[in-house]
Parts: sequence; structure tokens; C-alpha cells
Amino acid sequence: MAQTIDAAFVESPLFRAYFLYVSILAVKMLVMSPLTGFTRFKFKAFANPEDGASLKLKPRVDDHVERVRRAHLNDVENIPLFIIVAFIFCLTNPSVAWATLLFRIFTAARFIHTFVYAIFVIPQPARAFAWGTGFFITGYMAFQSIMYFLL
Amino acid sequence: MAQTIDAAFVESPLFRAYFLYVSILAVKMLVMSPLTGFTRFKFKAFANPEDGASLKLKPRVDDHVERVRRAHLNDVENIPLFIIVAFIFCLTNPSVAWATLLFRIFTAARFIHTFVYAIFVIPQPARAFAWGTGFFITGYMAFQSIMYFLL
Amino acid sequence: MAQTIDAAFVESPLFRAYFLYVSILAVKMLVMSPLTGFTRFKFKAFANPEDGASLKLKPRVDDHVERVRRAHLNDVENIPLFIIVAFIFCLTNPSVAWATLLFRIFTAARFIHTFVYAIFVIPQPARAFAWGTGFFITGYMAFQSIMYFLL
Repeated sequence: MAQTIDAAFVESPLFRAYFLYVSILAVKMLVMSPLTGFTRFKFKAFANPEDGASLKLKPRVDDHVERVRRAHLNDVENIPLFIIVAFIFCLTNPSVAWATLLFRIFTAARFIHTFVYAIFVIPQPARAFAWGTGFFITGYMAFQSIMYFLL
Repeated sequence: MAQTIDAAFVESPLFRAYFLYVSILAVKMLVMSPLTGFTRFKFKAFANPEDGASLKLKPRVDDHVERVRRAHLNDVENIPLFIIVAFIFCLTNPSVAWATLLFRIFTAARFIHTFVYAIFVIPQPARAFAWGTGFFITGYMAFQSIMYFLL
Repeated sequence: MAQTIDAAFVESPLFRAYFLYVSILAVKMLVMSPLTGFTRFKFKAFANPEDGASLKLKPRVDDHVERVRRAHLNDVENIPLFIIVAFIFCLTNPSVAWATLLFRIFTAARFIHTFVYAIFVIPQPARAFAWGTGFFITGYMAFQSIMYFLL
């Protein structure tokens, strides 16, 4: 990679861990789209007239589909923001072990969030805890970054 | 740029192509907001009481507006994720020609997706193919990145 | 940071300003989630049966909650896109003072947007101006980036 970018950047253990967990989070988030599509077919609930045309279905709203969509929207609200904030956090000279641990916990929390929201509904506060874990990690990283770059 | 970042990074053909297509995708996504606004005025369908106040309109939901909003939301779900994943993919030492081709196809697919969803509705599977093209490119890049940074 | 990334990158005044304002925008956007939660509790309007289970509440849609959610969604549509575009804009060799000024105005405009949308509703065109300020800054940066990397 030396011809395109400083090798020390890509090859550092910190950024290797960052790129790995970001890629895993991206795949997790990508899967929400086919999961929504699958749920739409299962419950025959489409958003557009052309989508259910071959099955002669009119658009309708279904609770199961909306639940998957809310889980997806929650990913959209939280995961790209974490990816951005975690990159900046990596530049604040954190310990590799600590940063990697936070990446792992965030990633696990987002998988759990989707599971308890859209796959197998578990009573609250299961989802609140999963969401809150990701929220506080992102908030912590953003706060550390502000302190580092403000001073 | 040598004073702020490694020139080899910004000046490499791979990253120049990446930055160009990301900027084009950003403009494409930005345009969805005025397109929504235009459709709201055209069909006199606003989301907030204060938005239609001067026309004495109450908020209402309109199918044409919702269609544009769904196209926009689909961009929000897919484009930033591609931008993140494609950056990491660029660090996995791909061939410049192959990566640039994928950027071009993704960009074209997202333009087509919006066109057949919100501008001129074409029966399925037109939209499914456009969406799927982008989806599989992002998935492929994420998978390649996981393999590269896991090992 | 020399062991992980080119110090000139992280330590340049341009990128320090960029990372600072991105972190501030991230915190601003993060706060939208608890603000939604707070509004849901205040007006007893939950999206899922399990959320209001302890209060024996059925899911219902509330105008105050929807207003906060629309403000949040507007952030989701605009802020990550700005963060991406502004990074690329930083690579086009802008003056530090000019770029920092744009970061500041964008950040202020997004705070004002949320305030007049979801905290204290002010008649239009207050929200339109706040949104438009951020929109044109992002558009300008994307256009400059296309010109720079196209040629």
C-alpha cells in the first residue's frame, strides 16, 4: 500500500481493528435491507403498488415490517455516527486494547439491539440496554475527541 | 497538500477516483431534499403546520411525496455505508481499474434507483435490480475488507 | 501518533478544526435520541408495545414526538453527508480560515435547525433558512471537490 497511503496507518493494530469492526458493522447493517424485504414478502405488506403488482397486492403497513424498519432506522441513526466518531477517537492516541474493546462491545451491542428488536422480541429494558451501550460508547469517544482537539 | 497529509494518498489515482465518485454521490443525495420540497409544494402536502401556514394548508400525507421520501431514505441507508466501506476497500490494495469500475457502477445504479422510484415509475424488478447492484457492490467490498483485515 | 498515522495530518490546523467540529456535530446528533425518548415519556407515546408495557400503554403516534423524529431524521440526512464531503473538501487545499468558518456556520445552522424545529417552534422561513445554510455549504464543498478531483 506504500504507493497510495502511509503504510503505518493501514498496518497499525489500532486501525486494523477499526477497519475490521467497521466492515463487520457494515455487513450487519446491509443485512437489514433483505430482512425488511423478506418480512414484506412473508406478511405480504409492500410499500409501493408496483412491488406487490405480480401478487395483486395493494400497499399496506404491517407491524412486523415496521419493527424491522425501526431497527434498521436505529442502525442508520447510530452506526455511521459511531464509525465517524471512532475514526477520530483513533487519532486521539488511545491504547489499542481499550479502543479495540470498545469496538467489540459496540459491535456486539448493535447485534443484540437488532435481535431483541426485530428477530425475537424480549421485554424492555433489553433493547434500551443494547441501544444505551452503543450510545454511551459513541458519546464517550466524541467527548474524548472534543477534549483532544479543542486543547 | 504536503503540509497537511501525505501527498501520495490524495494524489493516487485510486483515491482521486474514490473522492470524485463520493462527491458525485453526495450531490445526488443532496438533491433529494429539494426534490422532496418541490413535490410537497406541487401536491400541497406539508409535514408541519408552519410549513403550509402562508397557504393556509394543514399537514397531510401524499403518495407522491412519500415516494420521494422513501427514495431519499433508501439513499440514506445505502450511500453513506458504501462511502465508508469503499474507503476501507481502497486500503485492501485493489486494482485501480477494478475499484474505479465498481465506483462507477454503484454511482450509476443509485441514479437509476432514484429515477425509477421517484421520477418516472418503472414496473419491478427495475428498482430491485438498481438497488441490488449497489447492495452487492457494498457487500462485496465489505467482505473483501473483512478478509483483508481479519487475517 | 507518529506510529499510526502521519503526524502532519492529525496535527494540521485544518484537520484539527475539522475533527473538532465533527465531534461537536456528533454529540449534537447523539442528543436527538434521548430527546426523542424524553418526548415519548412526556407525552406517553411509544412506538412498540413492550416500551409502554410497564405503564400499560398501547403504541400511539404523537405530533410532538414526530416533530423531534423529523428533526432527527433531517440530521441523519444531512450531517453524515456533510462530514464526508467536508473531509474531501479539506483535501482540496482550501484556506484554513475559510474552511473553519464554513465548519462553524454549518454547525451553528444545524443547532438552530433543531431548536426551531423541535424545541421552540418558530414560524417559517426560520427552519428553511437554517436547513438551507447547511445544504448550501455541503453543496459548495461537494462542487469544489468534484472540480478538484475531476481535473
